[in-house]
Amino acid sequence: MTDPNCIFCKIVSGEIQAYKVYEDNNFVAFLDIHPQAPGHTQVIPKEHHRCVWDVPNAGEYFEVAKKIALAQKKAFNTELIRSQIFGDEVPHAHIWVFPLSTTVGDKNDFAGNSEKIKSNL
Amino acid sequence: MTDPNCIFCKIVSGEIQAYKVYEDNNFVAFLDIHPQAPGHTQVIPKEHHRCVWDVPNAGEYFEVAKKIALAQKKAFNTELIRSQIFGDEVPHAHIWVFPLSTTVGDKNDFAGNSEKIKSNL
Repeated sequence: MTDPNCIFCKIVSGEIQAYKVYEDNNFVAFLDIHPQAPGHTQVIPKEHHRCVWDVPNAGEYFEVAKKIALAQKKAFNTELIRSQIFGDEVPHAHIWVFPLSTTVGDKNDFAGNSEKIKSNL
Repeated sequence: MTDPNCIFCKIVSGEIQAYKVYEDNNFVAFLDIHPQAPGHTQVIPKEHHRCVWDVPNAGEYFEVAKKIALAQKKAFNTELIRSQIFGDEVPHAHIWVFPLSTTVGDKNDFAGNSEKIKSNL
């Protein structure tokens, strides 16, 4: 179940490049291109669903978000990791997981920040 | 595992009253006292954990948040339900689940809004 016009479906398929930090059978996590903070990550289902609340295996989905949050805590040496579900930007379910904007680091160092998260997963 | 000084632990125990909309063995959901929108709900674990990411059964936790979101969609006839995890206000894990602020309704009608959510669970 994919939408040929959906930018996130194209990231899942690899047609559009992204700094992926995690992937399993059902979910992908990659760095947001407009980060609020170093390591700001989008966690999405591989299947195209409009909203997070439409994803059938929501528990498994959130366990992935938690993995990313715990890796970010270690990667960026920060205590509080935020998460937001808005849904009005890209019509493919996505959970933002990101450190506080005051976190030390260069939020635009995508290569470095993705490595830091991956090595702390 | 409770913290005697924690306001959310006191809501769990019933020492502080709240408009509870959902409760099971591990989680409670109740209306936020400073709502951003009608039906703005806090979903918390009964055990005292500092952060959402510290809650061991995170998948089950998020399934409860999803139940609330789906009930809010029906209760307030709205498509988009948001969620935020910040964690710097009350040091007891909490997930906000809330309709858009443009949602029609009186956000301060706690009795009416809690009934609307409960009847759509």
